[in-house]
Amino acid sequence: MAVGVTYPLGFRAAGVTAGIKASGRPDVALVVADGDAVAAGVFTRSRTAGAPVLLCRQRLAASGGRARAVVVSSGNANVATGPQGRRDAARMAALTAESSGVGAGVLVCSTGVIGVPLPMARVEAGIRSAAAALAVDGGDDAAIAICTTDSHPKLACRAIEVGGREVRIGGMAKGAGMIRPDLGTMIAVLTTDAAIESAPLQALLSSAAARSFNRITVDGCQSTSDSVIVLAGGGSGAVVDGDAVGAFAAALDGVCLDLALAIVADGEGARRIGRYEVVGAYDEADAERAARHVAEDQLVRCALHGADPNWGRIVAALGVCGAVVDGDRIAIDLGGVPLVRDGMAVPGAAAAAGVAARADEVHVRIDLGLGAAAATIWGSDLSTDYVIANAEYTT
Amino acid sequence: MAVGVTYPLGFRAAGVTAGIKASGRPDVALVVADGDAVAAGVFTRSRTAGAPVLLCRQRLAASGGRARAVVVSSGNANVATGPQGRRDAARMAALTAESSGVGAGVLVCSTGVIGVPLPMARVEAGIRSAAAALAVDGGDDAAIAICTTDSHPKLACRAIEVGGREVRIGGMAKGAGMIRPDLGTMIAVLTTDAAIESAPLQALLSSAAARSFNRITVDGCQSTSDSVIVLAGGGSGAVVDGDAVGAFAAALDGVCLDLALAIVADGEGARRIGRYEVVGAYDEADAERAARHVAEDQLVRCALHGADPNWGRIVAALGVCGAVVDGDRIAIDLGGVPLVRDGMAVPGAAAAAGVAARADEVHVRIDLGLGAAAATIWGSDLSTDYVIANAEYTT
Repeated sequence: MAVGVTYPLGFRAAGVTAGIKASGRPDVALVVADGDAVAAGVFTRSRTAGAPVLLCRQRLAASGGRARAVVVSSGNANVATGPQGRRDAARMAALTAESSGVGAGVLVCSTGVIGVPLPMARVEAGIRSAAAALAVDGGDDAAIAICTTDSHPKLACRAIEVGGREVRIGGMAKGAGMIRPDLGTMIAVLTTDAAIESAPLQALLSSAAARSFNRITVDGCQSTSDSVIVLAGGGSGAVVDGDAVGAFAAALDGVCLDLALAIVADGEGARRIGRYEVVGAYDEADAERAARHVAEDQLVRCALHGADPNWGRIVAALGVCGAVVDGDRIAIDLGGVPLVRDGMAVPGAAAAAGVAARADEVHVRIDLGLGAAAATIWGSDLSTDYVIANAEYTT
Repeated sequence: MAVGVTYPLGFRAAGVTAGIKASGRPDVALVVADGDAVAAGVFTRSRTAGAPVLLCRQRLAASGGRARAVVVSSGNANVATGPQGRRDAARMAALTAESSGVGAGVLVCSTGVIGVPLPMARVEAGIRSAAAALAVDGGDDAAIAICTTDSHPKLACRAIEVGGREVRIGGMAKGAGMIRPDLGTMIAVLTTDAAIESAPLQALLSSAAARSFNRITVDGCQSTSDSVIVLAGGGSGAVVDGDAVGAFAAALDGVCLDLALAIVADGEGARRIGRYEVVGAYDEADAERAARHVAEDQLVRCALHGADPNWGRIVAALGVCGAVVDGDRIAIDLGGVPLVRDGMAVPGAAAAAGVAARADEVHVRIDLGLGAAAATIWGSDLSTDYVIANAEYTT
């Protein structure tokens, strides 16, 4: 039994090789609910969002939050492809609806190279193959087929009890990678067998995404295709409302965070994760702003890579992050070692901090000393492998 | 005759080794006007700005824009050093005033490692040596002494004619580099023998900085110590006002731009410069936002390094830059080669663009197709050398 999108009852999935990728690896995935399903999605805020993102937004709005299936192609993002690209995305949805028998209600995601029209003959053949291969244990195949340069597929699941019934949530995601090389994209598809209305599902997904996918960074480059979609099929027979919403929300948060952290850990060239926890901020927006700015700062990321407890770079990044900051109040701990108090070095801390900086996940705790708000951002390090992957292997 | 800060009449300068840097290279510079001088400055907007920046801002405000000298120490930024750091900066100013005989009106800049108290015994001895070494041809020595990991000193000059007299502007700058390693800083000191009032001098410097130093980026990391200071001594006997202001402003812009471009070209690990020109923007703020976002995008910078005309990354960066963007209207030219029209690939352009991308300076022209506003940002590439310098050589 797959732990991904076919973990909840009432879903089938498949992943096949359509030949979009030159590598010959799987590149078309399909996730289909057995019956009507409630759907919600969160998408990139990019103003050059790809045709699939535009299609998903439009269809979720028009249907009032309902969908039956998600088709994902990898190897080509169908971005910056003009009117033809928008027709191709619509064709992918229509063909999926027809060949899988769902009739309508298909959402589309594509990830990969930007600016090249989709090879539609291959995509169409792939969709037909995937529809024929749909299976109740197809979640693993689907998770493999959405990857680009991810080093491994990413799956997660949770189960909770609602009114004596088991409710399951499963999901798959792909990380920021390079293909050919080009801008990678973050895509996640979640499923649940909970029976839940569209409005709360969208609210819970938005909330979960804000605390997971929106709190990670690999290279600070938001993609044109980032999409997180959830389908709720109701197969468990358990209705999620009232008191049950809290447990469902926590499980959904857990699946999203598992997938998000798997993306960071598998970031291009990543050696270790930084967990940047900002406390004592004036408000939560400031806390997130500060944590994100530090996590994305190139010099901080180089220091994380080199296991260098170089806190001066953190102070410098805080100074320009846009949050309210008082240099004389900053306190910084690295891996539990107090490095900075009152904006100045803690004498003799360097050796212990140097050891702590070599962990696989380095916890950087920053106390701004101004208020009670907090936020955490997870980020990867910046390595020579990242630069080589994105510069030396030119198109 | 030095082409830097001693190029204008009425200035002396010196650069000496005080032992702040472990390398034994020069690390204290002094620039002194022979008589009263008008002064203006622009400084980092960081909320963790260093003690020297706080001192300069306070003294320029208190004096109504007058100063006699600038002392620069390199190897230690005197940032995140608390009250002791502020006392040390004041001591540097007082000792410079005393030992150089100017009596008062000294501005202070420091650049280098963050979070370590200044070795004041060495700094004080260095200031005394520099004061003793002041010379009318000392501009070269001063330019050398302000460097940290710059590969060469940076000087620039311009001369214009005002009312039959020659008016000179000279300057020196240091770039973003690493020391020990730590966050580098951009510092520039300009001099002129023009006679000019304080208010227009500040206005012209702010304008020149906005079009030069504020339009470059090496790694997107704003420092705690960025400072640009100009002293106008009046030694030419030419008063700059009325019709003469335009020519003076153009010359000042030229000196600032020369120094700014020298900083980009000498950025840590830089192989080539990208000149990102955005036209057709809705307004100038949008044009600058778009150009800066593209120039600082890590994937674009990797592509610049690898001479990869990977325009999909540029479209992706434009999509999230915060400016008004219509993906279907974007046009991109690289080194004069049309790559994108109406947001889609120009067929067959890749080969010529690949050749153009190998130039030392690559001109990327982006037409947003929305309005008449334009802006240009110059940025360096992201190389493995940058990562190695900032990660592998740990403290």
